[in-house]
Amino acid sequence: MSWNGGGITVRKTLPGDRPALVAIIENSENLSREEMDCASELLDIYFKNPLETDYLFLTAVDPSSSPAGYACYGKRPLTDAVYDLYWIVVDSRRRRGGIGTRLIEELEKLLREEGARMLVAETSGLPAYEAARRLYLRSGFCEEARIREFYKPGDDIVFYTKRLQKSNGDA
Amino acid sequence: MSWNGGGITVRKTLPGDRPALVAIIENSENLSREEMDCASELLDIYFKNPLETDYLFLTAVDPSSSPAGYACYGKRPLTDAVYDLYWIVVDSRRRRGGIGTRLIEELEKLLREEGARMLVAETSGLPAYEAARRLYLRSGFCEEARIREFYKPGDDIVFYTKRLQKSNGDA
Repeated sequence: MSWNGGGITVRKTLPGDRPALVAIIENSENLSREEMDCASELLDIYFKNPLETDYLFLTAVDPSSSPAGYACYGKRPLTDAVYDLYWIVVDSRRRRGGIGTRLIEELEKLLREEGARMLVAETSGLPAYEAARRLYLRSGFCEEARIREFYKPGDDIVFYTKRLQKSNGDA
Repeated sequence: MSWNGGGITVRKTLPGDRPALVAIIENSENLSREEMDCASELLDIYFKNPLETDYLFLTAVDPSSSPAGYACYGKRPLTDAVYDLYWIVVDSRRRRGGIGTRLIEELEKLLREEGARMLVAETSGLPAYEAARRLYLRSGFCEEARIREFYKPGDDIVFYTKRLQKSNGDA
């Protein structure tokens, strides 16, 4: 039976999620070795001291309580209530199941409660990242800025932003 | 006698520079308390283990070997040879003396030798940061991207970039 993506719950990432999330990272064929190592390293920084780190995590779990993906985010230092969405990683066997959308929805809900003003996601402009860019646009982000050839020659960084509150000027 | 800015030497930051650099940070009237704390914290991360940190430092010293300012920079993870110029802080009594320009010149020289491809500096779009923006433009950076209202409402982040090598396409 194929899995249809329904019944996804999003909650804080717990230490018991580690093996499943590391497996999801290692099976992401669109991540380079360096990106996989960086993603796992951030996870371990979080598990070491979840209250003190700049990197926070949410896990999406399926109806059998099995992790299906995660979001890594954090408050951007020196800003007024801007949060970075560092990574969204979804189990490669369960893509197109709405897991990324659910992770962003729950993250936004949580951040709005904390008074966040803006969410920023950085991604690559390469074709391999088109699914990520479409996810951001579908979730109400705008492409706001771009630095050409940033990651490597021919590979731009694209900044997607979503305003979570009215700015003072609109109030 | 007023100091005319000549004879500036730029070298790696040494532990003995700490008191002078912290004093320069604390006397920078255009930095907020939070920015001062962040700048000092990065300096201490560097002094703890200058070989392992992501934050590297150069000090500009005047003819009497007294520190007159510094640059904090580092390799940007997950990029091909892109470096961030995190901070340039110049002694507030010795502004307009070409110290910022000298720091950027020496940093570029060092980074070109290491094969760096691009240098990125982020700064605020507020009038208080006009001197920094003029310094980047004068040093050959371009304003490449901007996220509106990033630092706080009314305060954009502006990305300045300088290409240090010909890209593959130009070769």
